Amino acid sequence: MVEVPNSSIALLHRVIQLIICAYTALYIVWYEKGYQEFQEPRGTSVTKVKGVSSVNVKVPSFLAGNYSRVVWDTTEYGIPPLVENNAFFIATHQIVTNDQTEAACPSALKSKLYCDANSTKCKIGKPTPSTAGFFTGNCVPSRENKTLNVCEIRGWCPEEMSASADYQISINDLKGFTIFIKTSVTFNKFNIHLRNIRDETNFSCRYHKIKDSRCPIFLLGDIIDQFETNIPALIDEGGVIEIEQKWTCNFDYNKNLCFPDYTFRLLQSGDEKQSPGINYRMAHKYRLNGTNYRILSKVHGLRFVLSITGNGGKFNPLQLFLAIGSGIGYTVIAGLVCDFIMMHVHKSRDKYRAGKVSLVNDIVLQ
Amino acid sequence: MVEVPNSSIALLHRVIQLIICAYTALYIVWYEKGYQEFQEPRGTSVTKVKGVSSVNVKVPSFLAGNYSRVVWDTTEYGIPPLVENNAFFIATHQIVTNDQTEAACPSALKSKLYCDANSTKCKIGKPTPSTAGFFTGNCVPSRENKTLNVCEIRGWCPEEMSASADYQISINDLKGFTIFIKTSVTFNKFNIHLRNIRDETNFSCRYHKIKDSRCPIFLLGDIIDQFETNIPALIDEGGVIEIEQKWTCNFDYNKNLCFPDYTFRLLQSGDEKQSPGINYRMAHKYRLNGTNYRILSKVHGLRFVLSITGNGGKFNPLQLFLAIGSGIGYTVIAGLVCDFIMMHVHKSRDKYRAGKVSLVNDIVLQ
Amino acid sequence: MVEVPNSSIALLHRVIQLIICAYTALYIVWYEKGYQEFQEPRGTSVTKVKGVSSVNVKVPSFLAGNYSRVVWDTTEYGIPPLVENNAFFIATHQIVTNDQTEAACPSALKSKLYCDANSTKCKIGKPTPSTAGFFTGNCVPSRENKTLNVCEIRGWCPEEMSASADYQISINDLKGFTIFIKTSVTFNKFNIHLRNIRDETNFSCRYHKIKDSRCPIFLLGDIIDQFETNIPALIDEGGVIEIEQKWTCNFDYNKNLCFPDYTFRLLQSGDEKQSPGINYRMAHKYRLNGTNYRILSKVHGLRFVLSITGNGGKFNPLQLFLAIGSGIGYTVIAGLVCDFIMMHVHKSRDKYRAGKVSLVNDIVLQ
Repeated sequence: MVEVPNSSIALLHRVIQLIICAYTALYIVWYEKGYQEFQEPRGTSVTKVKGVSSVNVKVPSFLAGNYSRVVWDTTEYGIPPLVENNAFFIATHQIVTNDQTEAACPSALKSKLYCDANSTKCKIGKPTPSTAGFFTGNCVPSRENKTLNVCEIRGWCPEEMSASADYQISINDLKGFTIFIKTSVTFNKFNIHLRNIRDETNFSCRYHKIKDSRCPIFLLGDIIDQFETNIPALIDEGGVIEIEQKWTCNFDYNKNLCFPDYTFRLLQSGDEKQSPGINYRMAHKYRLNGTNYRILSKVHGLRFVLSITGNGGKFNPLQLFLAIGSGIGYTVIAGLVCDFIMMHVHKSRDKYRAGKVSLVNDIVLQ
Repeated sequence: MVEVPNSSIALLHRVIQLIICAYTALYIVWYEKGYQEFQEPRGTSVTKVKGVSSVNVKVPSFLAGNYSRVVWDTTEYGIPPLVENNAFFIATHQIVTNDQTEAACPSALKSKLYCDANSTKCKIGKPTPSTAGFFTGNCVPSRENKTLNVCEIRGWCPEEMSASADYQISINDLKGFTIFIKTSVTFNKFNIHLRNIRDETNFSCRYHKIKDSRCPIFLLGDIIDQFETNIPALIDEGGVIEIEQKWTCNFDYNKNLCFPDYTFRLLQSGDEKQSPGINYRMAHKYRLNGTNYRILSKVHGLRFVLSITGNGGKFNPLQLFLAIGSGIGYTVIAGLVCDFIMMHVHKSRDKYRAGKVSLVNDIVLQ
Repeated sequence: MVEVPNSSIALLHRVIQLIICAYTALYIVWYEKGYQEFQEPRGTSVTKVKGVSSVNVKVPSFLAGNYSRVVWDTTEYGIPPLVENNAFFIATHQIVTNDQTEAACPSALKSKLYCDANSTKCKIGKPTPSTAGFFTGNCVPSRENKTLNVCEIRGWCPEEMSASADYQISINDLKGFTIFIKTSVTFNKFNIHLRNIRDETNFSCRYHKIKDSRCPIFLLGDIIDQFETNIPALIDEGGVIEIEQKWTCNFDYNKNLCFPDYTFRLLQSGDEKQSPGINYRMAHKYRLNGTNYRILSKVHGLRFVLSITGNGGKFNPLQLFLAIGSGIGYTVIAGLVCDFIMMHVHKSRDKYRAGKVSLVNDIVLQ
C-alpha cells in the first residue's frame, strides 16, 4: 500500500467517504427509515351520507301529471343504496320516465326520425340510432307534437326523450350534506388493526384540514368548493371524486397516534370538452294486472371513490444491517476513484505506479 | 499486502466472511428464494350464498297490518343482488316502512319535536334533525299517539321511525348458510391462470382449516364462531368481515398444487363503543294511479370483502446472479473491517502500518 | 500491489469488468431505465354500454301469460345499473318468476319431493333442499302437473322452478353492443393526471388493436370473438372477462403521448366442467292492497372487470447515482475473482504470493 501525502487527493478521498457515510446515515437510515420494515395497509371503508334536499322538477308542457317541488332524502339520491367496495354515489340530476311498458310508440322528436306515410325510412327490425328499440316500419304522429309524423319503434314506451321529467337537486342543500367515513385497516405483518374512529371521536365535528384533521365527518360543500371547477356543470353532468386516505404510521411509537391524511381529487369534472360527467340509467320494475311496468331514471351524479394508501414501518435489525452494509459497500467506491486518479490522471502518476507496483518478472516469461 | 499470522484477527476475518456467505446462501438465495422472479396474482372472485331463514317480525301496536313470521331466501337477504367487485352482503336485520309517498305528515315521536298550536318551533322550510324532510311550519297530532302534538314535515311519509316493522333473522338459520367462493387468478408474467375450482373439486364438502382446506364452500357459522365477538350484536348491528385468499405458489413445481390459504378477519364488529356495525337505506319504488310509492328498508348486515394476496415465483438466472453478486459484494466488508482494526485499533497497529505502507517521498515535495 | 503480465488472467479481469460495465450501462441504466423514478398509476373507470336486443322468451305450457318476443335496452340487461368500482355486468340469460308473494305452495317437480297423503316425508319446519323455503308438512298436488303429489313449502310462491319464463338474448344483437370506457389515472408522485379521452378523441371510432388502438369504444363482438371458447355456452351460463388497461408512460417525453394498452382475458368461461359461468338472483318488489309482491330473476351474464396497471417513469438524479454506484460495486467482484485465481488456482500462484505478501514476523511472537 502507498501512503500519498498529497493533501488534494487525500482530501478528495475523505470528502467522498464523508459524502457516502452522510448519505447512508442521514438519507438511507434516518430519512428513509432504513432501519424499519414496511408494509402497506389493507382495509375497507364504510360510508354514510346524510342530508335532505328539495328538488326542482321541470315537466314538458305536453306531459300530463301534477308534478311540483319534491323532497329527496338519502334513499332517493344514494343509489346504489349500499356503498360498494370503497365507493358511493350521490345523484344530483335525474331524468325520469314513468309507466314505461313493452309496446310500440312514436320515436322522440329529438331523434329527428321524420317520415311520411309512403316513406321507406323506418326500416322494419332495424335498431333505432338512440338504441331505445327497433323500428316497426310504421310512420305515426309524434307524441310530443301531433302535427309531425315520425317512425314508430318497438321497445319500452313511451320513449325517454319524449316523455320525461327533469329533477335537479338544490346546490345549497347539496353543499349541506355530510359524508361520514368509517375505515378499518390492517397491517397484518405487524398484526396491527387500526380504525379512524376512536373512543374519543366526537361525532358532532366537521373535518377541517388544519383545525380538525381527525374528524371522520366531511361537509360536501367543503370538498367540492376546493376544486377549481364549474360546480353547476358538475351538479348537472356529474363527476368522479377520489378521496385518498393515506395512513403513514410509525409503529415504533404509539400506534394510536396514527391517523389518515385525507386528499380530495376531482378525477372527472362536468365541464370537459369531451364526454363530461357521469351518468347511467336504472329502472324500478313493478306489475299491474299481469303487465310489467318500469320507472326509468337517467341519473347524473357525483361518484366518490375511496382509496387507502400509505405504509407502516417498524424497527427490524436485519433491515438496519442491510442499510449499513450497503453504505460500507459504497465506501469502496471512494478508494477506487482515488486510485484511478493517482494511477491514470494525476501528473505524478508514474512515481505512484513505481511505488505501488512490483513486477514479478519470472511470470512474464511463461 | 501483508499476511498477518494473528490467529484472533484471521479468525475474525474468516468468521465475518462465513457469516456473510451463510447469510447469502441460506437466507437470500435459499430462504428468500433469491433465485426466483416473483409476481403478485391479479384476479376476481364470484360468490354465491345459499340458505333460507325464518324471520321474526316485530310490529308496533299502533301500526295496521297482518304481519307474522316470514321467510327470507337468498334474494331477500342478499342485497345488492350481484356480488360486487370482490364483496357481498348478507342482510341480518331490517327496519321496513311500507307505502311511503311524497306528502306531509307528523314527525316521529323519537325525534321529540313536540310543539303547541302557537309555537314557532317548527321553522318552515328548515330540514328536520333526522334529515327525513323539511318542516311545513304546522303543528299536528302525532301518528303514534294522537294526544301529543308534533311538528309536521314534508317528505316521504309516513316517517320511518313512526311506522316501521322490525325484521330479525334467526341466528341458527344464519349459521347454516353456505358461502361458495369461485376465484380465478392470473400471473401474467408467467402466463399462468389458476382457479380454486378444479376438476376434482367436490361440491358437497365444507371448508375446514385442517381437514379440508381446499374446499370452496364455507359454513357461515364456522366463520363467525371463530371471532371473539358478541355475535348477537353482530347480527343486530351488522359488521364487516374480510376473507383473504393468499396464493403462495412455486411454479418450479407443478402449478396445480397451488391452492389459496383462507384467512378471516373481523374488520368491523357490532359491539364497538363508537359507531358499531354497518347499515344503509334502500327503497323499492312502484306506482299506483300515477303516484309514486316506495318500500323503505334500513338494512343492517354482514359485509364480506374478499381480497386476493400472495405471490408466485419462478426460477430466473438473472435473479440468481444478482443475489450471489450482492453476497460477494458484502464479503468486501469483511476485509474493510479487519484492515480497520489492524491499522487503527489493534495494539501492534504501528508495525502493521510499517509493513503495509511505503512512503513515496518525492511526491511529498510537490 | 503486483502487476501480473499474464495475458490470460489480465484478459479475464478486463472481460469480467467489461461484462459488468456493459450490464450496468445497458441493462440496469438504459434498458431498465435505472435513471428514472417509477410510480404505478391509480385511477378509476366509468363505462357505458349501448345497444338494444330482441329477446326470445320461452314459457312453460302450463303457465298463463301472453308472452312474446320482447326488447331489452341498456336498463334491462345492465344490472346493477351503476358501473361499480371498475366493473360492470351485461345480462344475457334470465329466468323470471312473476308475482311471487309470501305464502304456501307445492314444491317444483324439479326437486322431486313426491309424497302421498300419509307420508312423513316433508318434515315440517325443515328447509327444502333447494333452500326455497320450509316444509309445511302437507302433501299437495303439483302446480305443474295436478296428477302428482309433492311436499308443500312455505316461502315466496310460486317457486321459481315451477313457474318461470326463460329469456335469452340474441347473440347477433349482443355482438353489436358497444362498450365505452372513460378512465382517469393519476401519478401523484409526479403530479400528473391523465385521461384516455382527449380533445381529439373521435367518438364514432371502434377500437382495433392495430388500426385504432386509442379508441375508447369497444365492439363486444370483437372482444368475445377473440377468445377460444364456446360462445353459446358463454351467453347461456355467463362468464367473467377482465379488461386490463396498462399505462406505460415515460414522462421525460410529452405525457400526452401516453395511452393505455388494452388486454382482454376470459377469467371464467361458460363451458368449464365444474361450476361454469356466473349467475345471481335479484328481485323487484312492489305492493298491492297491502301485500308484498316481487319479480324474481335468476340472471346469467357477462361480468366485466376493469383493472389499471403499468407505471410511469421520470428522470431522477439520485436513482441514476444509485444505479451507477451498484455498477461500480460489482466491478470489485472482478478483482476478487482474479486475485482468488492467482493466489489459489493458478499454477504459478506461489511466485505470485511471494511477490504480493510480506510477513510481519514480530507480530507472530505475541
